[in-house]
Amino acid sequence: MQNKRVLLASRPSGWVSEANFRIEEAPLPQPEPGEVLVKNLWLSLDPYMRGRMSDAKSYVKGVELGEVMVGQTVGEVIASRNEKFREGDKVLTQLGWQLYGTTKEAMRMPESSAPLSCYLGVLGMPGMTAYFGLKEIGQPKAGETVVVSAASGAVGSVVGQLAKIWGARAVGIAGGAAKCGYVRDELGFDACIDYKAGNLAAALKEACASGVDVYFDNVGGEILDTVLARTNLFGRVIVCGTISDYNSSDPYRVRNWRAILVNRLRVRGMIVFDWKERYGEALAALAGYLGQGRLKYRESVVEGLENAPRGLIALLKGENFGKQLVKLS
Amino acid sequence: MQNKRVLLASRPSGWVSEANFRIEEAPLPQPEPGEVLVKNLWLSLDPYMRGRMSDAKSYVKGVELGEVMVGQTVGEVIASRNEKFREGDKVLTQLGWQLYGTTKEAMRMPESSAPLSCYLGVLGMPGMTAYFGLKEIGQPKAGETVVVSAASGAVGSVVGQLAKIWGARAVGIAGGAAKCGYVRDELGFDACIDYKAGNLAAALKEACASGVDVYFDNVGGEILDTVLARTNLFGRVIVCGTISDYNSSDPYRVRNWRAILVNRLRVRGMIVFDWKERYGEALAALAGYLGQGRLKYRESVVEGLENAPRGLIALLKGENFGKQLVKLS
Repeated sequence: MQNKRVLLASRPSGWVSEANFRIEEAPLPQPEPGEVLVKNLWLSLDPYMRGRMSDAKSYVKGVELGEVMVGQTVGEVIASRNEKFREGDKVLTQLGWQLYGTTKEAMRMPESSAPLSCYLGVLGMPGMTAYFGLKEIGQPKAGETVVVSAASGAVGSVVGQLAKIWGARAVGIAGGAAKCGYVRDELGFDACIDYKAGNLAAALKEACASGVDVYFDNVGGEILDTVLARTNLFGRVIVCGTISDYNSSDPYRVRNWRAILVNRLRVRGMIVFDWKERYGEALAALAGYLGQGRLKYRESVVEGLENAPRGLIALLKGENFGKQLVKLS
Repeated sequence: MQNKRVLLASRPSGWVSEANFRIEEAPLPQPEPGEVLVKNLWLSLDPYMRGRMSDAKSYVKGVELGEVMVGQTVGEVIASRNEKFREGDKVLTQLGWQLYGTTKEAMRMPESSAPLSCYLGVLGMPGMTAYFGLKEIGQPKAGETVVVSAASGAVGSVVGQLAKIWGARAVGIAGGAAKCGYVRDELGFDACIDYKAGNLAAALKEACASGVDVYFDNVGGEILDTVLARTNLFGRVIVCGTISDYNSSDPYRVRNWRAILVNRLRVRGMIVFDWKERYGEALAALAGYLGQGRLKYRESVVEGLENAPRGLIALLKGENFGKQLVKLS
């Protein structure tokens, strides 16, 4: 058996291209004492990876050139030198874009009837991001209006469904009629606005007749500015992503900062790691809603490690539909 | 006796000019039942007044053309048809830019040895703005670094002194060597940066070697952006004013929004009215510090109502030094 892995070959300026990656074969790694050897089954692709490809300051340091691209995987233990794990155990790892890897930091999957890939999406970091961001920062009250961008995505789809479960109105923003139809008809949002259709401001006004109480922002940019202009007094804004900036060397410049003052908004940045002591709480809640059929999800799967770069590029361009995954075997 | 008053004659586009005001004489108003007739002694001039001269959306509606300019005053009751007040009582009112006025909403001054004009500054709305903004939103911990812009002004000077009293480091930003010297040497800030000297970013880095934990923003604009870039993880930003925007028809566009995400900042807009149930607490604390000589202030006084427009223009241009007042008699 050989390992195969995807390395960062060069840093993108602007859009990511396949030339920024290099695929190589390597010998199968051998576990040291305390480690397990894991065969990865699923690799998660996420917008934050664009940030790690850059050397600009962010919440964690970027990937070095020639290093394996970072990423979360679900895998199976195929050899163990750690008494807590046995061959055949299913684990969550941070082994990144490769078929095999050794680690001391695997996390055993909870007993559950949910498919393994859910632990990279609705029950994984995206689901928990939605849970903590909406619950702790958004704090939606019954009857309030929650707006979320990238609404058909892994985080956004959970945000809107949780808003509904917790008694608020949910309004999504997504790109294209197909995604908007899915968000409304299958996920059960009250409305979903197609930002590609033009005139977002007017559509937002119509969908949020009594203003926006909570905005869960996954995108930044012009959409952020448009929603800021519709916020209510004492509204909350969860700053979770600025995907619209990832592929531009000049950041978007926010025009409606003054809405923070005028409406006395609470705006707060988040990443899910800030709540890592409470993952158990989120997992229990999300798995409960999933089991009751109240939380739906969709996956967008590319097959084979060699297609991971293409999958990430599609994700960054908004061409995916639901949680973006790479099926590794 | 005749009344004299200053009306809004036209809305400024860009900088305010004296032509935007009209001064007129009027008969002395007579109090209705429940009202007092007040002779105003001091008029407060504040940056928010620029907003009220415009018809753009803000937290309260603007002044109509031909109306008396809004403003807080300290005055003396000269006739009373309200059993709670007697001639000679000193009161705080919202009577605006005029020598006399009638109102049901006067507030009696607390017993105090502080000069009357303090109730428009260090013990008034500016002092309370500093108190609640820093205490409730900034939440400075001992040893943290608090940065405040417009540091020699009515709000900023109290922010930095409270930061010191509460055990934090205080770094001011002000315009010109004289103001910076005052902020450092008389108010006791740890450092004060002259933004007019150029290279604010480098000066800020030097003055805040371990970053910025709390930024109390009275100005917005380029200064805001520069400070955002120096914020620490989990920093707090109090959005209290955007004076840099007041005189421009295009708002400043904020470049470093992404710092909110990367540093998981808490950014919150405020106006002091949001804490009106707790004014007593703030007044007691501020009067205590003032009495102990731990809170210093400076006033910038123009004489005579007819000079109020000139005083406001100077304030908006940053030419004042300390709390801007008009002495009316």
